[in-house]
Amino acid sequence: MADSKLDQLCINTIRFLAVDAVQNANSGHPGAPMGAATMAYVLWDRFLKHSPEDPKWPDRDRFILSAGHASAMLYSLLHLTGYDLPLEELKQFRQFGSKTPGHPEYGLTPGVEVTTGPLGQGFANGVGMAVAERWLANHYNRPGHEIVDHHTYVIVSDGDLQEGVASEAASLAGTLRLGKLIYLYDDNDISIEGDTDISFTEDVSQRFQAYGWHVIGPIDGMDSEAVDSAIRLAKEETDRPSMIVCRTVIGYGSPNKAGTGAAHGEPLGQDEVQLAREQLGWHYEEPFTVPEDAQSHFWQAKSRGLGYQQDWQTRMEAYRREYPDEAAQLEAAWQGNLPQGWDQELDGLFEGVDGQIATRNASGQVMNAFVGRVHSLIGGSADLAPSTRTILNDQGHFGAEEHHGHNMHFGVREHAMGSIANGMAVHGGAIPYTATFLIFSDYMRPAIRLAALMGIRVVYIFTHDSIGLGEDGPTHQPIEQLLGLRAVPNVVVLRPADATETAETWKVALERRNGPTVLVMGRQNLPVLDRGTYAAAAGVQRGGYVLWESSDSPDVLLIGTGSEVHIALDAGKILEEKGVAARVISLPSWELFDAQSADYRNGVLPPTVGARVAIEAGTTMGWERYVGPEGICLGMKTFGASAPAGVLYEKFGFTAQRMAEEAETLVKRNRL
Amino acid sequence: MADSKLDQLCINTIRFLAVDAVQNANSGHPGAPMGAATMAYVLWDRFLKHSPEDPKWPDRDRFILSAGHASAMLYSLLHLTGYDLPLEELKQFRQFGSKTPGHPEYGLTPGVEVTTGPLGQGFANGVGMAVAERWLANHYNRPGHEIVDHHTYVIVSDGDLQEGVASEAASLAGTLRLGKLIYLYDDNDISIEGDTDISFTEDVSQRFQAYGWHVIGPIDGMDSEAVDSAIRLAKEETDRPSMIVCRTVIGYGSPNKAGTGAAHGEPLGQDEVQLAREQLGWHYEEPFTVPEDAQSHFWQAKSRGLGYQQDWQTRMEAYRREYPDEAAQLEAAWQGNLPQGWDQELDGLFEGVDGQIATRNASGQVMNAFVGRVHSLIGGSADLAPSTRTILNDQGHFGAEEHHGHNMHFGVREHAMGSIANGMAVHGGAIPYTATFLIFSDYMRPAIRLAALMGIRVVYIFTHDSIGLGEDGPTHQPIEQLLGLRAVPNVVVLRPADATETAETWKVALERRNGPTVLVMGRQNLPVLDRGTYAAAAGVQRGGYVLWESSDSPDVLLIGTGSEVHIALDAGKILEEKGVAARVISLPSWELFDAQSADYRNGVLPPTVGARVAIEAGTTMGWERYVGPEGICLGMKTFGASAPAGVLYEKFGFTAQRMAEEAETLVKRNRL
Repeated sequence: MADSKLDQLCINTIRFLAVDAVQNANSGHPGAPMGAATMAYVLWDRFLKHSPEDPKWPDRDRFILSAGHASAMLYSLLHLTGYDLPLEELKQFRQFGSKTPGHPEYGLTPGVEVTTGPLGQGFANGVGMAVAERWLANHYNRPGHEIVDHHTYVIVSDGDLQEGVASEAASLAGTLRLGKLIYLYDDNDISIEGDTDISFTEDVSQRFQAYGWHVIGPIDGMDSEAVDSAIRLAKEETDRPSMIVCRTVIGYGSPNKAGTGAAHGEPLGQDEVQLAREQLGWHYEEPFTVPEDAQSHFWQAKSRGLGYQQDWQTRMEAYRREYPDEAAQLEAAWQGNLPQGWDQELDGLFEGVDGQIATRNASGQVMNAFVGRVHSLIGGSADLAPSTRTILNDQGHFGAEEHHGHNMHFGVREHAMGSIANGMAVHGGAIPYTATFLIFSDYMRPAIRLAALMGIRVVYIFTHDSIGLGEDGPTHQPIEQLLGLRAVPNVVVLRPADATETAETWKVALERRNGPTVLVMGRQNLPVLDRGTYAAAAGVQRGGYVLWESSDSPDVLLIGTGSEVHIALDAGKILEEKGVAARVISLPSWELFDAQSADYRNGVLPPTVGARVAIEAGTTMGWERYVGPEGICLGMKTFGASAPAGVLYEKFGFTAQRMAEEAETLVKRNRL
Repeated sequence: MADSKLDQLCINTIRFLAVDAVQNANSGHPGAPMGAATMAYVLWDRFLKHSPEDPKWPDRDRFILSAGHASAMLYSLLHLTGYDLPLEELKQFRQFGSKTPGHPEYGLTPGVEVTTGPLGQGFANGVGMAVAERWLANHYNRPGHEIVDHHTYVIVSDGDLQEGVASEAASLAGTLRLGKLIYLYDDNDISIEGDTDISFTEDVSQRFQAYGWHVIGPIDGMDSEAVDSAIRLAKEETDRPSMIVCRTVIGYGSPNKAGTGAAHGEPLGQDEVQLAREQLGWHYEEPFTVPEDAQSHFWQAKSRGLGYQQDWQTRMEAYRREYPDEAAQLEAAWQGNLPQGWDQELDGLFEGVDGQIATRNASGQVMNAFVGRVHSLIGGSADLAPSTRTILNDQGHFGAEEHHGHNMHFGVREHAMGSIANGMAVHGGAIPYTATFLIFSDYMRPAIRLAALMGIRVVYIFTHDSIGLGEDGPTHQPIEQLLGLRAVPNVVVLRPADATETAETWKVALERRNGPTVLVMGRQNLPVLDRGTYAAAAGVQRGGYVLWESSDSPDVLLIGTGSEVHIALDAGKILEEKGVAARVISLPSWELFDAQSADYRNGVLPPTVGARVAIEAGTTMGWERYVGPEGICLGMKTFGASAPAGVLYEKFGFTAQRMAEEAETLVKRNRL
């Protein structure tokens, strides 16, 4: 069935706003908006439950443009439906300081639900959003009170479906039977190197059926009624995620570029834009024209949105009356607030503990100590929960049959785990955590980076943090990972030295709302530092602190992180016996320490003391900033090896004896 | 059909060598060897064409244990079939300095074809090996001379199939119709968190059918005749990769742990080992027993192997007689040798070039200048060939229909691209290169790390290397990636300043045989440095060199990499006019520079000159080692932004004016 005249006008309005934005910027991607405008229009016009005047209304449907390079289409939709995104912003597409950057950015543009662009990420973010929705619904809805009840819609491209992270997320979404997840696949057979035949001949429909998805189509993705029927069908299916395969033509309407890679990543050119106008019957010469009929039609989204909200507000009030505690808790969760005193258990948790505790174990104890108060905490591991000690006891599971528990099972899918956590965090109402071995942070880096760029609260637990994991050998022993994570802007990395520091790192992680936090834990047992003898663990909050010193005018500074702090302490005591005054500094977080005042930092690391030895069982790279030109770092310069941890620490030189010797040499050199 | 008595004895020998090795080490994974021993035995005993006494014989079948945690099974097979791996080594399983580390390591243990352990990698490596085989066969075989003709066999686990990298590689293998690729899926339904039902309910068979694979089974993977028939069937299929779904029981034979997660990652315990012996009818009390009948049967592999080799040698000689040039070229390729003078075109390539060339463009020109001589070069891009400028002109494609070309199309699959390249490199006969934007190196890190750990020659081309890529914005602008790659042991990273340096970086990359090389290229146009005025580009070979100076006793050192070298040069000239003597250093590679003698390094960066300004449009982290305590680094401390490159360089302070000012300030401070 043909599109109505008005529909056609609206679809072309989306197309040409996008084309004009790209042409005006002389940079961007016109092809995808031209091909996908119909599906986007039908979805936004007839299905998407949203409120342009209140983009953060919690029970809105979520929309993700996983193919983030089609950003101009999203900006067109946001502008046309009445979000606070004036036409002037579309004219500033891809310019410094605009709200219309090259790829959609969460937190910058009203209505952009998540930052996309790196392919595959948006696909997996959608799964995270649907997890958060179902989880909140199961926690908070009551009979007759469906206050959490919305869909997640995602537009994905050929490129998205080729990325492994999408495969991982799709398989998990099928296992979890996320029935309120609806994907529209913009199947145009074109990627940058040309026809997808050269690299992508798989049967996508069959693949998604295998994952347990409800697959619809292929349909003509440029026929609005076909899209309409397909979305209806998808909404009727409540037990499986849906994938609508929409056949489209990239650059549709461009007589010389449609259906080719040339339409993908560069402006059409003024002449071709003119030809496209003619072909599509677009009679407006002026760029950025929004015909009045189209505008008034699109603006109905505003009143529809207010209607949705009003209805929901009424229902929310009834819920609040009947279930005031639940309502208060839910609202706090949406706002991301932690309950007063959420961490009150933590300070005394390891007081008077005798014997040794690995930081991974301490972390598990800490999580279990506060989880009763932090209802929003939900997460899990990439099939390493027993090893990462991240099981939340008696908190249930989140799975296909059981939807209210706090323990998720991501499978051996680190990358999707990270991207799903991002989706959960931007959805709101959940504080997601993930867990795996530190080495496998490499599999998750693209997701971690996006969490940092978006400034969202995700907690990453990485255990088995060094050669100290022992026999699994160099494939599993992180070397460069700590530095690699520290190097990502807006990530805070903490590597605690013992159980008491571990409790402090969790405080940092949960209180930090504007970015992700990495908690790095060890496998091996460690003494619990007696805080009567040593400085208080609260020093963790400042990133680094003086843990112990044999004299307040030290000859040498010994700096350690994590398990190596204990080696530094032993070295300090050896030096004390030799009459060398040593100060031992625990430096669990570079980022927090660097954020302190110069006074504080110079108090901890007095500039007058050039003799400095740092110790960390990771790469030495980057430690120059703390040890300075006269100091040294004991660390790794090669990969590790397969052997018991104790042997490796000896072989790679992580011993108190060696540290003391190196320190003494430096002190003597300075005295010359 | 039941296994014969001898088969059963042999299978149990594999099982108990593995169980005993794990028990003896008190560390490791007994469950997978116990379940997968039958399939491994049948494959090695009846199909695998290999020669234990000459593990590197080029036309052998390749075997990959993608589930690398089952290493003890592989070591058992290698020992039993007569590789140079004495029983003593199995008794040293997971100990320092042994040839039996926790996970199989390429280059350490004879017969280990590739380092595995991080899940999914071995799956994708197999695809790379099959690519290399087919490509060599198509280049070098002649009618009646099938001198390259072997299969690649891979044992994969549930965990492998959950990883996205495996999905990416599987889809590409289907597209490429790699018919000599045979996978045995150890389908035991157990991963570390328990039953795979909680996270992995997909229909694996259907999924692989969707990828275009030939799927066999499920069969009883512990019935040797069923495995035998299935492998026969797989070999008959020559047009599609085969996946044999083998139902097995993890920890088979262990009465209390079989079929549970408890069998996966820890020793059975002495008592349970005893019970397993009883259950499996293993009547040998002594650990590490190899019954004589089993040993003499396994050793037949040696004579069989010599037979294969002899036959092949005869055929190779006939080939050599008839096609001496091809034979010589093939043998050089196997040895990884480059032809004499392969780089003779490069030195003059950019002489007298007027105008600007982006380093990505220069790199494309360089590749095309030498590819006619470097026959082994094969690679491609993750769907960004036009942007990364990595198309080899007139060199054909490698695809489903065309198997001899040099241009591969990986699709939007960066991770598999890296892992496939690893498989090609360890296979031998190919020098693989990959290409994408620098930001997407994050997707490939696990593969890059394994290339470094294995010490193999892979060339990574990463373009769009900084905020200089412009409008695509912060999702696409690398900040921490350069440092992140420099931090991986045994990786050499080079970021050339212009076209002439670009030619030098390629020399480094191809001549470097014991590790991977990262070439980092820019999108934006840059002047070609006139080497009459400036020092020779050959300085790149030493990692860093003095490019220009206004006086040989400089007041200040200006250090740059890549496109920022030109800013440093302009700053140097501004300073010269102000009477400040500046030295400009191009430092394309930290690793190469750090490997120079102290004399050379101090010659370039005189310790007496503390006033130093480095400039690089990436994170400032790590530059302390070159700028020292008095110097500064102009770099990025945040994410980038979406705007034209020129605007961003200005906004983020990458200007000659600023650099000159900062330098002047340092010089003045030093004079006080």
